[in-house]
Amino acid sequence: MSFTAAVHRKAIELGKLSIEMTTAAGSGHPSTALSLAHLVTVLMYHQMRWDPADPWNRAADRLVLSEGHAVPIVYAALADLGAAIGPDKAHARPMTRTDALSLRAIGSPIDGHPNPGLGVHFFDAATGSLGQGLSVAAGVAAAAKMDGSTALTAGGSGGLATDVRNVYCIIGDGESREGQIWEAMDFIVDHSLTNCVAIFNCNELAQSDWVSAQQSAEVLAKKAEAFGFVARVIDGHDPEEISKALSELHVIKNGHRPLAIIARTVKGWGASAEQGMGKHGTPVKKEALPKIFEELERTAKDLGVADYKIGEGELKITAPPALANAEPKAAGAIKINFDEALEKQGMLKDFQAGKPLAPRKAYGVALLALAQADQRVIGLDADVKNSTFAEYLAKKLPEQFLECRIAEQNMISVAAGAAAAGKIPFCSTFAKFVERAYDQIEMAINSGANFKITGSHAGVTLAADGPSQMSLPDAAFFRSFCHVKNYAGETAVRYFFPADAVSCFKITELMANVDGCCYLRTLRAETKALYKTSDTFEVGGYKVLREGKDVCFVSAGYMVHECLRAADELAKQGKKASVIDAYSLPLQVDGVLDVAARSGGRIITVEDNYTGGLDAEIAMAIAGREDEMTLQSLCVRRIPKSGREPAEVLAYCGLGMKDILEAAG
Amino acid sequence: MSFTAAVHRKAIELGKLSIEMTTAAGSGHPSTALSLAHLVTVLMYHQMRWDPADPWNRAADRLVLSEGHAVPIVYAALADLGAAIGPDKAHARPMTRTDALSLRAIGSPIDGHPNPGLGVHFFDAATGSLGQGLSVAAGVAAAAKMDGSTALTAGGSGGLATDVRNVYCIIGDGESREGQIWEAMDFIVDHSLTNCVAIFNCNELAQSDWVSAQQSAEVLAKKAEAFGFVARVIDGHDPEEISKALSELHVIKNGHRPLAIIARTVKGWGASAEQGMGKHGTPVKKEALPKIFEELERTAKDLGVADYKIGEGELKITAPPALANAEPKAAGAIKINFDEALEKQGMLKDFQAGKPLAPRKAYGVALLALAQADQRVIGLDADVKNSTFAEYLAKKLPEQFLECRIAEQNMISVAAGAAAAGKIPFCSTFAKFVERAYDQIEMAINSGANFKITGSHAGVTLAADGPSQMSLPDAAFFRSFCHVKNYAGETAVRYFFPADAVSCFKITELMANVDGCCYLRTLRAETKALYKTSDTFEVGGYKVLREGKDVCFVSAGYMVHECLRAADELAKQGKKASVIDAYSLPLQVDGVLDVAARSGGRIITVEDNYTGGLDAEIAMAIAGREDEMTLQSLCVRRIPKSGREPAEVLAYCGLGMKDILEAAG
Repeated sequence: MSFTAAVHRKAIELGKLSIEMTTAAGSGHPSTALSLAHLVTVLMYHQMRWDPADPWNRAADRLVLSEGHAVPIVYAALADLGAAIGPDKAHARPMTRTDALSLRAIGSPIDGHPNPGLGVHFFDAATGSLGQGLSVAAGVAAAAKMDGSTALTAGGSGGLATDVRNVYCIIGDGESREGQIWEAMDFIVDHSLTNCVAIFNCNELAQSDWVSAQQSAEVLAKKAEAFGFVARVIDGHDPEEISKALSELHVIKNGHRPLAIIARTVKGWGASAEQGMGKHGTPVKKEALPKIFEELERTAKDLGVADYKIGEGELKITAPPALANAEPKAAGAIKINFDEALEKQGMLKDFQAGKPLAPRKAYGVALLALAQADQRVIGLDADVKNSTFAEYLAKKLPEQFLECRIAEQNMISVAAGAAAAGKIPFCSTFAKFVERAYDQIEMAINSGANFKITGSHAGVTLAADGPSQMSLPDAAFFRSFCHVKNYAGETAVRYFFPADAVSCFKITELMANVDGCCYLRTLRAETKALYKTSDTFEVGGYKVLREGKDVCFVSAGYMVHECLRAADELAKQGKKASVIDAYSLPLQVDGVLDVAARSGGRIITVEDNYTGGLDAEIAMAIAGREDEMTLQSLCVRRIPKSGREPAEVLAYCGLGMKDILEAAG
Repeated sequence: MSFTAAVHRKAIELGKLSIEMTTAAGSGHPSTALSLAHLVTVLMYHQMRWDPADPWNRAADRLVLSEGHAVPIVYAALADLGAAIGPDKAHARPMTRTDALSLRAIGSPIDGHPNPGLGVHFFDAATGSLGQGLSVAAGVAAAAKMDGSTALTAGGSGGLATDVRNVYCIIGDGESREGQIWEAMDFIVDHSLTNCVAIFNCNELAQSDWVSAQQSAEVLAKKAEAFGFVARVIDGHDPEEISKALSELHVIKNGHRPLAIIARTVKGWGASAEQGMGKHGTPVKKEALPKIFEELERTAKDLGVADYKIGEGELKITAPPALANAEPKAAGAIKINFDEALEKQGMLKDFQAGKPLAPRKAYGVALLALAQADQRVIGLDADVKNSTFAEYLAKKLPEQFLECRIAEQNMISVAAGAAAAGKIPFCSTFAKFVERAYDQIEMAINSGANFKITGSHAGVTLAADGPSQMSLPDAAFFRSFCHVKNYAGETAVRYFFPADAVSCFKITELMANVDGCCYLRTLRAETKALYKTSDTFEVGGYKVLREGKDVCFVSAGYMVHECLRAADELAKQGKKASVIDAYSLPLQVDGVLDVAARSGGRIITVEDNYTGGLDAEIAMAIAGREDEMTLQSLCVRRIPKSGREPAEVLAYCGLGMKDILEAAG
């Protein structure tokens, strides 16, 4: 009885605080919090092996709250346990009840939805945009297995170091409609991440309606089994049933199948006034608090825990297991060498002989070299590794590679989880398919995750495959983050678009050494080298390839080569053009404008994407100054189509040599 | 035998042409095409009720090729049947073998992936970005049921007019890893779209590897059953098995469960040289063609159809069923009235009394009025209809509403399908969650779909919920499409951000009458009316609310009200500010700059989103002109956090009244 009574009592106390918090905030989701009161209590006070004073412990179990709006119940537990919060370990302090009651206040780290970026490191990633948590949990679980030095190969079953941390993920039933949840289920089975537990909170109520029968406990259990999980349907308010299901974990693990717990719960548990439709996002009015608490105490009475005092050891948190291996190498510059890396891949001779080399290949070579230099570097790919050339890493270092198959959203959120666990994940796929995960990318950015994205086959020069495979709005999308500071005060996203193999290799190295989100656009085409292997590249940098007095081309990627050809053509007409390779956003734009000023003050941006990238970057700078400089933007002005040759598609889109020369003429 | 022999013979012929096409193009996916040879033959020459001469027939069955890269096999059939292609019915012509061999050529409508926008109306939407086709098919199927005038309510089973068109969707096994496929499966069951058939092409080979065991025929069958489908596993190269499984459809329909066919196929069927790994995206070299054809003929011989002449009626296409109801109302302006619509919702009195009204509510009222005025107008929502106010429509006209639950990607692709079937779909959810479907939105834009997106709770003034619920990069993303022409020569996207209820209502009406993709940002906040109900609004339009000589605020949405307050403050200091409500992109910017010129040439853009929207729109215009105008951009420069009051979050993000006044000072 004591355990059951203790859980009930604690659940009611946490429920009360959750209600108070949302009332104090004037918004939030108390009824959802109540539906999780018992699950959260059993997990945080009994099942999880962790240390409230040290949420940074790499061996400790983790809890990912995918349905982020239920967060008050977790905050309540953290406050009750005095768990450490703060910007970092050195500046941490125990969370208090006062902190909890500062929910959603502008000066408070206790945000409306989970976010480690604001100082609550109990969480691995920001949640609240639904359906992403299980992927994050899978990323943490995968990283734990890597650190547990168990071979983890795509599709392989891997070893099962019993001391590897477990990761529990709570998912809303309505939320489980998001396809990403099922991408994560596939991923967890593929990589037999039996240390990752999916817990579905089936309270049957979504925001605007009852959940569909497709998300009922029965159907969710069927789905989970079909996806390869062991599914257990339990009463989510019965302490014994919850702990029994969770205690099965180590047994099920040995069966090499992951566990899914489908918990039937009541939204607004314990307080009928909080139950039923229309109670989703509405806090209790201050004056109604006594009545609600009275009702919760009546529930306590019915459960025989009205005045129950939780006894010593009735709820006991187990300390984290010892780390399976040492802390990862302390951060510090990861250095790789272009010649050595190319030599290892047998590419150096051709390169030195002047053979063109595709930037995407240089990326693949650099990624492998980085992973060999530092085990924190891992690769993730979405079944195009033979096109992005992440396959160099996949083949040589399978234990530092995660094949994500054709599921880009899961890939990005897995990377966010792996980053939270200390990895430096490089995610690659076609730039067009990165667009599939823009929401997940923004959530990972908000989390402060240190992750890298490489989009290959960027722009219209992909030609034959057509627009369904071409990335076009990505420059505008990522640029918008290039002028935003994250919670660490750093630029939220660094955008890179190298024009040749040398710069692509060096920028990939640079990305590994810059904290935060970096987006790299790579080209399919074999391109001529523009740089010496001794050249250096930096965040915000650019290279002046030509300097002339008549006009200034500012470009990036493939179009830099076209601009150089255009400059040659203009030279024949006696016109001298400057050509700048602006490979990085946010751009150190003043230097670019100085060159432009010496080039007659006429800038022509040339881009193989839709407007809003380089052109907007330059235009904003010009519009901020009072001078005579003018900008003309050449970019993709119509939806492309297939063409057998890049030149044909460029001409179709208004980016042909004729168009460039006309603009400059 | 004759049917079987005829299918084998036809499949081999279509396979040969597919190979020739990709060889001529120098790129493409012949091996995938071969794996579909029999399925496509049975569907297009036997099962589907359609008219090759009239792909516009609204009663005809449809085929959605979700794995778009397999398209050569469908093109081959269309060419063989002389199916009509062309910009529209009036300018259609029979597709020829020559057309087929022009695959991927710049001047050809036969693009690298399916795309109706280029003139092949056999397709309902552009595919090629994987995982979207089944949602498109579901949208076509749902529209067909609506037109079949069978009540179709969210979660309801609906009637089953046996003559309602069937929609067949072919999905790759590797592709079925995309979560959106499973969102579509849920949606199809929710709305008992038994006229939508999911066909999984299990050739076991993806691009860079064998498919995961999670995507094997066995597991896919288990998953389909768990999701509520009747699953049939068949040999995808056995004509009898294929037609038997398809002929079950009408029986299964009466069981109110949809059919999923899991077809085991061979990638590179019939030609061993095209089989196995590494044959995904590689066409056959011209010189190797004879050898491949020889092998295919040997296969024909083994099947006893070496010299088989397909007899009269052995492959017979059935004509489409008669339309269940009349053609939808001919296009023409859909007119609604603000006062009448508000009156019906009992909101007019308060509005006329000067009570503030949230733009999102005005959207809900307008959407209902539009749907009542024209049955083509339908609403789709992702379980936030009580926040977006799409619920006004959901409650009054359930037969014109599709609840999509928490699955935004599926919602957008369903809308693309419904639009192809003649509907005018309005999709709404929080603007933040629209980001989840940016890839699907771009594909729908490329399809030329006439669909509308409404993102509510836009910007940082949502405050308390925090950044996981705030839409911030959307202005930059959608603006990039505002300067792109679609295949019809129209602006690809129109972006609207109204500041009050009147403009929001009228812009919603405008959106219904403008062909193509429109994006509407609506506000959570109850805002004061800025306009008279007699005011008019237009694409690219703006309103000059104040005109002064010192500085010019250009803003949209919530910030327009802040700019008016700032102008009042400045007036006290003797400074006169202009205030422009730039509610539409692409903006008629010259008029805005003329006002700015009269305002001292000093523009300050004020936006509650990340950079790249209004500021880029203005900056590009200024940078294009040689004058002394300057721009200062005030927008969200850091990742927001929760705050209990909008003003607190605005100040946190550098958009407080103090910041605005400082910028103007």
